[in-house]
Amino acid sequence: MDDLVKALRKFREERDWEQFHSPKNLSMALMVECAELVEHFQWLTQEKSRQLSDETKRAVEEEIGDIFIYLLNLSDKLGLDCLQAARKKLSINQEKYPARKVKGKSSKYDSYE
Amino acid sequence: MDDLVKALRKFREERDWEQFHSPKNLSMALMVECAELVEHFQWLTQEKSRQLSDETKRAVEEEIGDIFIYLLNLSDKLGLDCLQAARKKLSINQEKYPARKVKGKSSKYDSYE
Amino acid sequence: MDDLVKALRKFREERDWEQFHSPKNLSMALMVECAELVEHFQWLTQEKSRQLSDETKRAVEEEIGDIFIYLLNLSDKLGLDCLQAARKKLSINQEKYPARKVKGKSSKYDSYE
Amino acid sequence: MDDLVKALRKFREERDWEQFHSPKNLSMALMVECAELVEHFQWLTQEKSRQLSDETKRAVEEEIGDIFIYLLNLSDKLGLDCLQAARKKLSINQEKYPARKVKGKSSKYDSYE
Repeated sequence: MDDLVKALRKFREERDWEQFHSPKNLSMALMVECAELVEHFQWLTQEKSRQLSDETKRAVEEEIGDIFIYLLNLSDKLGLDCLQAARKKLSINQEKYPARKVKGKSSKYDSYE
Repeated sequence: MDDLVKALRKFREERDWEQFHSPKNLSMALMVECAELVEHFQWLTQEKSRQLSDETKRAVEEEIGDIFIYLLNLSDKLGLDCLQAARKKLSINQEKYPARKVKGKSSKYDSYE
Repeated sequence: MDDLVKALRKFREERDWEQFHSPKNLSMALMVECAELVEHFQWLTQEKSRQLSDETKRAVEEEIGDIFIYLLNLSDKLGLDCLQAARKKLSINQEKYPARKVKGKSSKYDSYE
Repeated sequence: MDDLVKALRKFREERDWEQFHSPKNLSMALMVECAELVEHFQWLTQEKSRQLSDETKRAVEEEIGDIFIYLLNLSDKLGLDCLQAARKKLSINQEKYPARKVKGKSSKYDSYE
């Protein structure tokens, strides 16, 4: 992942694109890429979304690539490490949703049912 | 990253949350987390978005953690590797936007100016 | 609708909020409100999304209100009329997706199946 | 607006697209259209977003049309009136952000500064 972050830095420096990459703009670009991912799923049933065609899966993989690239660019710009951020958040979630309490019924989702 | 993917798997299995985690639903959750990130930036100038307060930065880090968690969950569910997806996409971008052609003016962004 | 647009103008003028309401920022705020709407649906099956509880329906109505407010603010700022924009777009769609061609199978959606 | 809602109903009935239009799916489609709008603004400065070229303005108008169409479809499907929803929300906002309190400094935005 460190190598990828470095390659991304080099990529935008070579193109002089830093000027466009404010955290504000990167958050927008990240959102736009996520929506392109959602677009592949919007008319599918949940069942069908579990059985994508090879063609759709390749397109989804590209969107996942785009999302991860912008997430790394944004994190790098803010001096944050997204792997560490995810680990921290998982710890918070483990405290917030103890398995013995939410298992099966899962309080988080029940409020929507 | 592999360890994190395994920890996420364990987390959702212990809670019996697989049933909610269709790729369709995960794409929606990913989008919602991105919007929570965008919310921190929506009224800021680009300048201010480069100089976040410690408090905002901590909140942004949590959102980045959430986004990465859902991105890993979705990739895992689809049998995709998001690191590899990003590397592939970077190669595509390197071909699509050759530095000598887009430097400074950067064709990608120029269409918006 | 004209009365609402005027009321929205008065609302932001009285608060001196014009300075925050660049089209860029309004597009972000619109997106964030949409995501708050999506959040109500993200873990629901399609079936359940057709049978919302009264409580969820009230919450969804608030989000729809927010979305429409930002859509009107943005249109007003750009000198556009969102009713006319929708009528124009409907005409385009009627040409693009002729009923006799897309009925039942519906080409637009078929590409995702 | 009532005429437009009726025209939209006729449009989807003629195409037999009701089956795809669960509130869940419509919320996703609404989000995707919003992101297409955001895409026009993502690399612009706030200044430039206030002075769109005619070409970009036409493209933005199409996106606004799409967003309004999906917002009306979703509201119609849920038996809600988006004009009334916006009026209700404006009343709530008027109470929540009294002009004399938030003017100039505007508490809502200050938390981000």
